[in-house]
Amino acid sequence: MSSFKINSDRLWDSLMEMAKIGATAKGGCKRLALTDLDKQGRELYIKWAEEAGCTVSVDQVGNIFCVRPGEDMSLAPVGTGSHLDTQPSGGKFDGVFGVLSGLEVVRSLNDLGIKTKHPIEISVWTNEEGSRFAPAMMGSGVVSGRFSLQEILDSRDVDGLRLGDELQRIGFAGDVPVTGRQFHAFFETHIEQGPYLEAEEKQIGVVTGGQGQRWFNATLTGRESHAGTTPMHLRKDALLASTQLIQKVEDIAKAHPPGCGTVGFVNVTPNSRNTIPGKIEMSIDLRHPLDEELSAMDKELSDFVAELAAQTEVAIELDPFWYYEPIHFDKACVEAVRNATAKLGYSHMDIIAGAGHDACYVSDFAPTGMIFTPCLDGISHNEIESTTQEECEAGCSVLLNAMLTMAEQVSEDSTMLASDLA
Amino acid sequence: MSSFKINSDRLWDSLMEMAKIGATAKGGCKRLALTDLDKQGRELYIKWAEEAGCTVSVDQVGNIFCVRPGEDMSLAPVGTGSHLDTQPSGGKFDGVFGVLSGLEVVRSLNDLGIKTKHPIEISVWTNEEGSRFAPAMMGSGVVSGRFSLQEILDSRDVDGLRLGDELQRIGFAGDVPVTGRQFHAFFETHIEQGPYLEAEEKQIGVVTGGQGQRWFNATLTGRESHAGTTPMHLRKDALLASTQLIQKVEDIAKAHPPGCGTVGFVNVTPNSRNTIPGKIEMSIDLRHPLDEELSAMDKELSDFVAELAAQTEVAIELDPFWYYEPIHFDKACVEAVRNATAKLGYSHMDIIAGAGHDACYVSDFAPTGMIFTPCLDGISHNEIESTTQEECEAGCSVLLNAMLTMAEQVSEDSTMLASDLA
Repeated sequence: MSSFKINSDRLWDSLMEMAKIGATAKGGCKRLALTDLDKQGRELYIKWAEEAGCTVSVDQVGNIFCVRPGEDMSLAPVGTGSHLDTQPSGGKFDGVFGVLSGLEVVRSLNDLGIKTKHPIEISVWTNEEGSRFAPAMMGSGVVSGRFSLQEILDSRDVDGLRLGDELQRIGFAGDVPVTGRQFHAFFETHIEQGPYLEAEEKQIGVVTGGQGQRWFNATLTGRESHAGTTPMHLRKDALLASTQLIQKVEDIAKAHPPGCGTVGFVNVTPNSRNTIPGKIEMSIDLRHPLDEELSAMDKELSDFVAELAAQTEVAIELDPFWYYEPIHFDKACVEAVRNATAKLGYSHMDIIAGAGHDACYVSDFAPTGMIFTPCLDGISHNEIESTTQEECEAGCSVLLNAMLTMAEQVSEDSTMLASDLA
Repeated sequence: MSSFKINSDRLWDSLMEMAKIGATAKGGCKRLALTDLDKQGRELYIKWAEEAGCTVSVDQVGNIFCVRPGEDMSLAPVGTGSHLDTQPSGGKFDGVFGVLSGLEVVRSLNDLGIKTKHPIEISVWTNEEGSRFAPAMMGSGVVSGRFSLQEILDSRDVDGLRLGDELQRIGFAGDVPVTGRQFHAFFETHIEQGPYLEAEEKQIGVVTGGQGQRWFNATLTGRESHAGTTPMHLRKDALLASTQLIQKVEDIAKAHPPGCGTVGFVNVTPNSRNTIPGKIEMSIDLRHPLDEELSAMDKELSDFVAELAAQTEVAIELDPFWYYEPIHFDKACVEAVRNATAKLGYSHMDIIAGAGHDACYVSDFAPTGMIFTPCLDGISHNEIESTTQEECEAGCSVLLNAMLTMAEQVSEDSTMLASDLA
């Protein structure tokens, strides 16, 4: 089968147009979920999708679905999608690249006069970022059954505003049930948000899965005492003990490449210059693509905590409060991405998603794959997040061809093909 | 010369009576500087001092001076004193033991019918704790010239109330100048607030000086990035670098006994579970009784910071913003304390004050000594702060005899002596 490229200028223009809604001074975007700006972004997106011939519907949690008909409408659609909401000081591409790539796929299929057996469906998932309403990936999480609809509708932002009410307010409390959605296959294009593709000089990351995560809260309890009058050998310094734990988290991660280990949060009590810290509360985040490695990391951590508590006079509680199993994307979907990349002649590498994405939840109930493209210095969740038109073109073209493989092309316009053939 | 003991029951009763003003549920005391409770405490103290025959005056910063006349009023007085204000969750003895010991010395001298050549003067220094108004040791600091009167009067509490106005409000804005005060000698009795006397089973600490202190602020700047997508070898984790610095502070202190090294304050930015810390602000507190050792500790710290910054990709700024020279108390005063202790038959050891005390500032302008008594488990600045009547009796008796040595006893009532002789 032939391979096709999308219209790079049109994709880029749409990205820049969408970025005006909530544009920030430093070139980023602030378009928090279910705000007036999110409403504007959603309405612009629906206008574009309808102009491209899609039928648009909205479900009970505000997810938007845009369908380009297939020849056999009894078949489950081949889906793609991501999100339009951003971090408070986010960039122009995180999420937005995914939903506008979906739109560009539909527009290109129209240009190319290509019909597919399966319908093509683009989803704009509600509140992926989790910035205004926690947790993250709400829309895809409700559809996958990870969260109940009611708990999500009842979640509130810091001002006490209820998500369900905000959906009503912006006109996106739809009536399509959140249950029973199916995809024949699902793909998400996303900027990598990390440094691997750039470091390896690859245009496309063929995402084979998502890291598993184990999250802990650790509490170290020593004894507060006076920094001037307590001799060194009589101290029970909780902060000093915590330094060994922080270093151990680093050591464990390095011993299990490509695992990650991070202490991002530390709270010191009483946090006074003149007083030996009596209590430390800290987070521990362990990640690995392989579950057996992640379990080994978990065990090394627990063993060390017991050892450290025995060696020092500091009591340590370790609460393993969250476990997120590693995700292995569908072999056929991953293969479709890899083949499309090869046919288009892009350099590529297999890669694991370090962060969570809507596609991770979709993979609970449908065959799923992801396509990563590089971002400058691996920086995301930042106004300076940056990628190039060429990088977007490559990712979106791979999406087009991978979707086409799964959706089964039934005709093509050879005139259009000539000009767009890769 | 003979040695004398004070009236232990009377001292203890006064301590318990004063502790009722601001008594807390857990048996401690909350009597913050220049509050209504501080006013009550001061007024009770003055009533007792006047009943004991003292002449009372108040200076411009609210310090109270209670004079028992000497035979030669042209001579500088032999002073003693401490403070009545407490920590927000303080104990019954910190400071209060010092001022009530002074009162008990006067009462005992009256009982014993002893006249002295030099006047005896008790000072109740304003705001030693520095809890409501910073910095600490204000009253003695103004008299010693460490602080200007005006800057202290203009200092404000967290509610914006001005110290000078609060002095007026409680009726303790006196008119005695803060300049020109003299002591022939000065002694302060205080609970140790540390564990040494208890550990060594000694009744009296003969305080030979106060530790020097060097205070630093350190700022470590790495790079914030995503905990899931940033591989271990590409991180610039400011928290991880800080653990080495915290451990080095400990190592430096242990290499210079009896020095102390403490990191009491750590602020993590952005302090989010999901993000590698980009910035750490922390305090470093180094203390040592010997200036050359303290300087060596300082140099080791600076050298290590340069080394650490070179080894890691984290920038480190070290700001040495405060230096407090070690204090060496007056040899004759220390000797007077040591001799009094020996004559009374108390077990004793030389000791260095780890914390700051009013006596440290008084030593700027007068021959000074201090007497420490044990406190349970070395705990102070805590409602559970505890000491016994016997320990208070010992400390106050040593004070009486040391003051008598310096004030030059000119007569004694042998009848009283018989019953009170040690």
